[in-house]
Amino acid sequence: MPYTAATQDQLLAIRVNAGIEELAQSEKFAAAEPDMVEAIVEGIGQFAAGEWAPLNRQGDLEGAKLENGVVRLPDGFAQGYHAYVEQGWNAISGPTEFGGQGLPFTLSCNVLENLGTANMAFNLLPMLSVGAIEALEHHGSKELQDKYLPKLVSGEWSGTMNLTEPQAGSDVGALRSTAVPIEDGEHAGKYRIKGQKIYITWGEHELSGNIIHLVLARLPDAPEGTRGISLFIVPKYHVKADGSLGSRNDLRCVSIEHKLGINASPTCVMSYGDNDDCIGELVGAPNRGLAAMFTMMNNARINVGNQGVQIGERATQQALEYARDRVQSARAGSPDRAPVAIIEHPDVRRMLLRMKALTEGARALLYYTAGQVDRGTLGNAEAAARGEVLTPLIKAWGTDAGIEVASLGVQIHGGMGFIEETGAAQHWRDSRIAPIYEGTNGIQAADLVTRKLGMEDGQAMMALIADIASGAAKEPALHALAGECATIAEWMRSEASLDDRLAGSVPFCTMLAVATAGWQLALQLRAIEAGAAPALATAKKASVRFFLDRIVPEAIGLRAGAMAGGSGLYEISTEQLLG
Amino acid sequence: MPYTAATQDQLLAIRVNAGIEELAQSEKFAAAEPDMVEAIVEGIGQFAAGEWAPLNRQGDLEGAKLENGVVRLPDGFAQGYHAYVEQGWNAISGPTEFGGQGLPFTLSCNVLENLGTANMAFNLLPMLSVGAIEALEHHGSKELQDKYLPKLVSGEWSGTMNLTEPQAGSDVGALRSTAVPIEDGEHAGKYRIKGQKIYITWGEHELSGNIIHLVLARLPDAPEGTRGISLFIVPKYHVKADGSLGSRNDLRCVSIEHKLGINASPTCVMSYGDNDDCIGELVGAPNRGLAAMFTMMNNARINVGNQGVQIGERATQQALEYARDRVQSARAGSPDRAPVAIIEHPDVRRMLLRMKALTEGARALLYYTAGQVDRGTLGNAEAAARGEVLTPLIKAWGTDAGIEVASLGVQIHGGMGFIEETGAAQHWRDSRIAPIYEGTNGIQAADLVTRKLGMEDGQAMMALIADIASGAAKEPALHALAGECATIAEWMRSEASLDDRLAGSVPFCTMLAVATAGWQLALQLRAIEAGAAPALATAKKASVRFFLDRIVPEAIGLRAGAMAGGSGLYEISTEQLLG
Repeated sequence: MPYTAATQDQLLAIRVNAGIEELAQSEKFAAAEPDMVEAIVEGIGQFAAGEWAPLNRQGDLEGAKLENGVVRLPDGFAQGYHAYVEQGWNAISGPTEFGGQGLPFTLSCNVLENLGTANMAFNLLPMLSVGAIEALEHHGSKELQDKYLPKLVSGEWSGTMNLTEPQAGSDVGALRSTAVPIEDGEHAGKYRIKGQKIYITWGEHELSGNIIHLVLARLPDAPEGTRGISLFIVPKYHVKADGSLGSRNDLRCVSIEHKLGINASPTCVMSYGDNDDCIGELVGAPNRGLAAMFTMMNNARINVGNQGVQIGERATQQALEYARDRVQSARAGSPDRAPVAIIEHPDVRRMLLRMKALTEGARALLYYTAGQVDRGTLGNAEAAARGEVLTPLIKAWGTDAGIEVASLGVQIHGGMGFIEETGAAQHWRDSRIAPIYEGTNGIQAADLVTRKLGMEDGQAMMALIADIASGAAKEPALHALAGECATIAEWMRSEASLDDRLAGSVPFCTMLAVATAGWQLALQLRAIEAGAAPALATAKKASVRFFLDRIVPEAIGLRAGAMAGGSGLYEISTEQLLG
Repeated sequence: MPYTAATQDQLLAIRVNAGIEELAQSEKFAAAEPDMVEAIVEGIGQFAAGEWAPLNRQGDLEGAKLENGVVRLPDGFAQGYHAYVEQGWNAISGPTEFGGQGLPFTLSCNVLENLGTANMAFNLLPMLSVGAIEALEHHGSKELQDKYLPKLVSGEWSGTMNLTEPQAGSDVGALRSTAVPIEDGEHAGKYRIKGQKIYITWGEHELSGNIIHLVLARLPDAPEGTRGISLFIVPKYHVKADGSLGSRNDLRCVSIEHKLGINASPTCVMSYGDNDDCIGELVGAPNRGLAAMFTMMNNARINVGNQGVQIGERATQQALEYARDRVQSARAGSPDRAPVAIIEHPDVRRMLLRMKALTEGARALLYYTAGQVDRGTLGNAEAAARGEVLTPLIKAWGTDAGIEVASLGVQIHGGMGFIEETGAAQHWRDSRIAPIYEGTNGIQAADLVTRKLGMEDGQAMMALIADIASGAAKEPALHALAGECATIAEWMRSEASLDDRLAGSVPFCTMLAVATAGWQLALQLRAIEAGAAPALATAKKASVRFFLDRIVPEAIGLRAGAMAGGSGLYEISTEQLLG
């Protein structure tokens, strides 16, 4: 089903929540002036809706296929990727010295939002490449940057992240892939890589000229656990001194997974060094690979939260169209008993407004987070800390909201929602991965109540809650939710044990995310009342009021779970739990 | 993945929540004495786990296929169905005069619970047959009963329900299929049926010797809408006077749907009378078909709620096994940093206990509802009314809980949860149909705040709430939730407009369902403290406390949405909503 990019709501969020005009006052982001921002948001929206959205259904139906070691995509994906690269969309936020436009992260989030709304599975290809660029930009030597960045920035080459092994998922420290220094010969100074990695998104395909794998592995005699992990760059094709491609490296895609969704995205089992001839180069310092990987992972987490916005937008538009066209039953109590479009029925309208409110709330939180990251890049330490606190919120709650919205979309379609042909079911299936990858939502919540809660002796989080409370002076439910968040955070910092905090982490994460999103939506409403985006005024008021009056109070109901403590979870032994 | 039937928890719910011992004191249900009940619950649990569960994954993978008008099922389904019939499980609650055992509905729910936990798609076959039996038992003539009931009760034949047409889904009154009386010849006194029906579950297959379709259609000159609908029995094969099968009737399966889940269940588009020779017989009075259909639909709704329990049990067992076996990371704060099974991590344990609490809560509500229906059958009008109030609660909340539990099951599996091979994803896909069919959950909630709220001038619902409140004297959160339910119900009966009620119907439905389930779980806990089911004691205490301390307070958070009113949904026009 076609869709129209949510350009106006994106621009509102980029202005109000990311504060793009303030960012453009810096030297670094001076190019992000209003005309440029509008041109980008409108341009990528049209490109994505026109070129990538039509491939979404076919991508799901046919999926990626592995044939004799080569991954085949449905017709149209190659053309779609080449058009994207040719139009320069991949280079939006890449470093200017390597051909990028150096625009704020906020705008690269917008590019990904639009691509992912059009085609969530396809969008993982540029999304992973952004991560590879960031890792090299921040941790690669000048030599590695010169060698790899220009073509990664342009999109001629793509990138992947290789962390997971069968025994090492959330516990990255358990990985066993190895890297042995090469002392002599052609590859002296490089490393021989060996190991198997799983869940490698777009690990193999033919859309880009080369695939640059970023691989975590252990050097000989490296310490155990996370302190003994190094990061390597391992290209599919060797890159010669003149930048041209050499022979194929000793790595291959062993198989691709049969998944619940995002079927156009090949999820690969990758084998490195089957013939002991896989060559990689070290990125950053030995044994400091995890820190380097986290550079890319933090922003990737924000862009997984972004996927909640994406699937929410797409599912909402599809449900709105269906509800407009499907005529069924009269309005309850109507005198003439004439059947109406189901969009007129109160509960269908409630579901549609809930979909809009959750999607717009997640979008407001997304761009607020992105704007803080950009301020951090400009050297604002307070904003950098705020961005770190916000990251688990948008990742976890954004992706939970994505599933809920997609599920409401199925429900609005009634029986048709359960038939694959309609497409509503695909959104729901696609949405389910986002709470899992880039750190499960449980791990996001754990991060929130351990590392993020402790940042700056608690002040980073308490400052956020205080800002919400003061912004919510005229919104009683939001103010109450902020108060509950403060109470819980204080309890977690003082009395609560580590188990207590972890036991309450997921409900608390939801509460703080809803509070932040509600606050950012309230700021949008205020901007609209002051004259911003008059075309959106009525619709925005309806969705914001829905969020503040109905969704915010639900989050207050999570307080008991957030403070219920850990002991109740262990009064039953593991054997008794297993039954 | 294999599983073990939840026999002990089922027996507890059948005793405490359905009150089977009291039912067995009646003449009608005297056979339901304790030994018999245990034999049934244990027997069907073993049968389902042993015979039907192993077919679940293959049924999903291969699905039902239509080949030249014949529906093919994967290997094993025919044998599985024949074994089920031979062992007499289909006849549990069928009328004794037609070969049934005449046992309480409670026990037929238990048979379906076990079959559906083993194989949700397959279970739809007996579930729909139960509905056909009930319709004939209550509305069929003696002649029709003699002709069809013995073989429907035994399971030799199966039954279907045919309501939906492309333009008539939730709005059954919009259906257009026709039935014309036959005046002369072989079929004099019968009707010529013509029309197309969609979403006909198990509408065509070869597992049973005949398929007895119950079809809604309009007589010539019937009034418009729901008052002009009649019910017909339309067999796949004509049945001769001696009970043997005659020629094939003029009906066929045109196609089967490609669905999100329950793939082993053929969902058929049925065409009746392509050659103007489809013969049906009238069931009940002309133009009173909807009332007859509701007889079967009410109990079917309870058994769709039952599917929430089924998928919840299956998903929980699978997640428990995975969490026991999967070793990943040390417990936070553990001094030795040794990796542990993930079942030891607080947030995984929280998810597992939530899965158990929701599943057991839905089961308690299911059997409480079934027990009230059985009392209604015995002539207890108060219990009959209570059963009617409870039906939308178990249907809507039970199925919502099923999705939530299945989703948590996926989450606990991490990346493996998104890989189809694991099976966790199938449960989640299968679960998604239950909030849609047999009246969407929105329609259940509408029924609750219109017809059910108005029953006995509101006393039917207020009595339930009062019973919860008095049972919750020692449980502050549950008592508070009951109080909120009373407030909302009173507001809905006095001040609220019809739109207000419908706008708040879904949150109110969830609140009342959670309150009722919490109350029934508290009764289980009391019974256990008094010595019932000592083997379950510790586990039950943990799951009930989880429900009362964490899930009940969440439901209180829905109050604002329940009372937010309808006007906010219409301040935005349909055009503005569409954007």
